[in-house]
Amino acid sequence: MEVFKARYIGFCFGVRRAVQLCVTERAKTEGDMCTLGPLIHNSQVVERLKEQGIRPEDKVEQITGGTVVLRTHGVTKWEEELLRVKGVRIVDATCPLVKRVRDRAVLLRQEGYRVVIVGDKEHPEVKSVLSYLDNDAIVLRRYQRIRGGRIGLVAQTTEEMARFLNIAKMFIEDGSEVRVFNTVCRITRLRQKEAKTLSRKVDIVLVVGGKTSSNTEKLFNAAKKANPCCYKIETSADLDLEWFRDKKSVGILGGTSTPPESIEEVATLVKSL
Amino acid sequence: MEVFKARYIGFCFGVRRAVQLCVTERAKTEGDMCTLGPLIHNSQVVERLKEQGIRPEDKVEQITGGTVVLRTHGVTKWEEELLRVKGVRIVDATCPLVKRVRDRAVLLRQEGYRVVIVGDKEHPEVKSVLSYLDNDAIVLRRYQRIRGGRIGLVAQTTEEMARFLNIAKMFIEDGSEVRVFNTVCRITRLRQKEAKTLSRKVDIVLVVGGKTSSNTEKLFNAAKKANPCCYKIETSADLDLEWFRDKKSVGILGGTSTPPESIEEVATLVKSL
Repeated sequence: MEVFKARYIGFCFGVRRAVQLCVTERAKTEGDMCTLGPLIHNSQVVERLKEQGIRPEDKVEQITGGTVVLRTHGVTKWEEELLRVKGVRIVDATCPLVKRVRDRAVLLRQEGYRVVIVGDKEHPEVKSVLSYLDNDAIVLRRYQRIRGGRIGLVAQTTEEMARFLNIAKMFIEDGSEVRVFNTVCRITRLRQKEAKTLSRKVDIVLVVGGKTSSNTEKLFNAAKKANPCCYKIETSADLDLEWFRDKKSVGILGGTSTPPESIEEVATLVKSL
Repeated sequence: MEVFKARYIGFCFGVRRAVQLCVTERAKTEGDMCTLGPLIHNSQVVERLKEQGIRPEDKVEQITGGTVVLRTHGVTKWEEELLRVKGVRIVDATCPLVKRVRDRAVLLRQEGYRVVIVGDKEHPEVKSVLSYLDNDAIVLRRYQRIRGGRIGLVAQTTEEMARFLNIAKMFIEDGSEVRVFNTVCRITRLRQKEAKTLSRKVDIVLVVGGKTSSNTEKLFNAAKKANPCCYKIETSADLDLEWFRDKKSVGILGGTSTPPESIEEVATLVKSL
């Protein structure tokens, strides 16, 4: 089997930085250490951190002392305030690009815009941004008409670019003023573009990444549009040999929270077919 | 021949206002009266104004006294200043929607945006807007990448909506911040939409309007995309009976500067075929 691995694959800058911060802090910190929510959306990585004594905690109420790492997607303003009041030591691993979404959205609201976030309202990144706006924003992934006023538009960092652009276009068509911060992160844009081109030139596409990873899901959607013979897997254990019958070439894509080992494992196994 | 006349046809608000202003002013004003440039882009109307003693002057240098009417598309800041210095009496018939483009563009420049105007740089409206920006803006009708900085986008009032939206989309895709004022005027939007739907349901389309009229040209483009059997005419004198051979239905569209009489003349003649 001929294997084409994406050029942009594996950990992005924000994930690498967060994992590095955890490892460094663990080495120099005594006592209890946890993350608030999983550090990144990849269960293999989260398991490995657990082995190193960094457990994920779901609720801020369960954290009473020690060190807490704020995950890449960010936490809500209220959670962070509560942790400070409790006197817990905070290590902030929030991706700077997520903070940029937050800053831009806050600026838009301050300047009198009706803030619209293109993203998933259940995703921790969006929940974090919303909390900094006191929940005074509209979250959507399908255009809906908003009457009157000036629209301020931002995107979840891992949003599909095509979707974001189409929604922006519709707000411009319907409205009079739209101020847009394109906060889809650069690596997401590059990977979505590459997902399309690579998927077109192979017989089968494998997208490697965490089940709850938003950017992996969107990469999968972009790839599937370009090549319907497309599968999302978490590790090589999810591979099904039936998929490869009569196929000659395979493309491998990976989410920004997918560890390089998971990708290498898949690539090695597929090459041997 | 079955005739379908567009619902949105004939003079728009800005043109009606300008013609009305001219007539009213002529009635109450003694002495010399002219317009700086043709009042609107329709030679029939300009001829009729001439008969009433309102001649069009091309250059501000030729105007030395009396009353001057500023045309619907606006004049440059320098021309207006020069007229004031000369002590000429000014009647401002500039369309308020053209002034809105100007105001929005000036605001964007003041707030540090790189101003981009989607429109025709030879059109008097765009020249007028540019002059208020001291020519510090980019005029384009095809996307071109502009490196760095915040982009402030406006449109000529008669620009094709689809073109404007696509250019906006590309600026958003390539950049980080884009602030858009959708200054395509409402009636232009409605007519372009109607041009498409009406053109699809008839055998032949006639677009009635001045040769130099920007909005008539764009209406023609929109209609031609929906129905290739499409002709642009100024008056019924331009009709060619050959066009109607084997045709059963005709759609009639008109620019915002097309007088109702021109449209009625065409409709009556075509109905009798």
